[in-house]
Amino acid sequence: MSLKIGIVGFGSFGQFLAKTMIKQGHTLRATSRTDYSQLCHQMGIQFFRDVAEFLEADNHVILICTSILSLSKVLTSMPLTPLKTPTLFVDVLSVKEHPRDLLLRVLPEESDILCTHPMFGPDSGKDGWKDLTFVYDKVRIRDEAICSNFLQIFASEGCRMLQMSCEEHDKLAAKSQFITHTIGRTLAELDIKSTPIDTKGFQTLVQLKETTTRDSFDLYSGLFIHNRFAVQELENLERALQRVKEMLAQRMNEELGTENT
Amino acid sequence: MSLKIGIVGFGSFGQFLAKTMIKQGHTLRATSRTDYSQLCHQMGIQFFRDVAEFLEADNHVILICTSILSLSKVLTSMPLTPLKTPTLFVDVLSVKEHPRDLLLRVLPEESDILCTHPMFGPDSGKDGWKDLTFVYDKVRIRDEAICSNFLQIFASEGCRMLQMSCEEHDKLAAKSQFITHTIGRTLAELDIKSTPIDTKGFQTLVQLKETTTRDSFDLYSGLFIHNRFAVQELENLERALQRVKEMLAQRMNEELGTENT
Repeated sequence: MSLKIGIVGFGSFGQFLAKTMIKQGHTLRATSRTDYSQLCHQMGIQFFRDVAEFLEADNHVILICTSILSLSKVLTSMPLTPLKTPTLFVDVLSVKEHPRDLLLRVLPEESDILCTHPMFGPDSGKDGWKDLTFVYDKVRIRDEAICSNFLQIFASEGCRMLQMSCEEHDKLAAKSQFITHTIGRTLAELDIKSTPIDTKGFQTLVQLKETTTRDSFDLYSGLFIHNRFAVQELENLERALQRVKEMLAQRMNEELGTENT
Repeated sequence: MSLKIGIVGFGSFGQFLAKTMIKQGHTLRATSRTDYSQLCHQMGIQFFRDVAEFLEADNHVILICTSILSLSKVLTSMPLTPLKTPTLFVDVLSVKEHPRDLLLRVLPEESDILCTHPMFGPDSGKDGWKDLTFVYDKVRIRDEAICSNFLQIFASEGCRMLQMSCEEHDKLAAKSQFITHTIGRTLAELDIKSTPIDTKGFQTLVQLKETTTRDSFDLYSGLFIHNRFAVQELENLERALQRVKEMLAQRMNEELGTENT
């Protein structure tokens, strides 16, 4: 079934998702704080400057593609009640408890909520979405048909569909994605650069620094501020580095001790 | 010209180098604190338990393949003077000023000294040495023919030959190899593990953790204790992580400030 999908926040990630949805035959419309009317015209998408009109455009799905940090402001500025028809709201943020809580708080009770995290983007998904992971949590679903139709967009592209609670997602993401971004940002602060004697391992770190800093600092802050498990992982990382330092100091003392005897 | 090469320290790295040298037609012999007579017998290498006999075996080259931490002990326990014939001493440690200084101090004045760092090992060099980097510094060379003959072992396998002072090597290695090992060890202390929602970046970190900890902690300590530039880089890394933490805290305060106004 062809869906009418309204995208809120038409930045690079929203555009990236829209392309595949159009290819699949869905009808897209968009609204954004920035005026994307020209780009939307080229893509064959109706662009609404007026959010109220956008909301009245009879969407099956409203897909929220804002940044983590702007979600709250964007949602509270939308005239969400009353909606003409029950709608499935979907978010695609890299943290999951925060949008779940906000959506549960601000949406009319008759709206369905699906929280998702496509674990890929314009870079990693440029050659298709096959085998890339799509995480989702059916937070409040009454209309199973629409929800399943929407999930089918990703399943039919070959995504690895992974149903997981928002809490479990955030726990795991703090240990993996957030730590990865923190290492990448730290290497950027350290200003590491390729040398004539790079080892293979060092080359992967230079690469990591580059991919991490291609994302905005706002994204990184969002991963920290709106994932309640991140602060502990940051502390764990600091402590791990401290322990390595202590182990080096201890080994050094042993060596000096040996040399002096 | 076929060289007679005596290896001091016949651990995995010495064995790894020996295989290619034998393949090229050189005559190998070895001595080590551990008894490798059986392995050497299988490889067609003469093994000497007695270091004095090893030194008298008329070697063109004595190739030192000990660990960084044991170099001093091994060298000072060898009856190095007088040597029957002038010999080229070569080391292959991952730090360069330390062996240079030690060799200059303990070797008879008539011995030549070549300090090298093959930037590869049994893992990265298992499919040949083509395009892998071989760093060297001609610390004290009078017999250019023997030295050039020895370097040819690596050049003829396709290594990228890189002449560089020991000091320059250690500066660059502290910024690259040492930092890489430190990140790998820190991730090991943090006990990172693959999750069902790994990003590509996180997968490279899990991989880095594994390759780093496959090397001994002694190697890592050696990179720190015997590279005078490493302590500063470790401090820089700590500070970089601190700055990232501060940037997050600042962004978080801004966000909370915005929400409260």
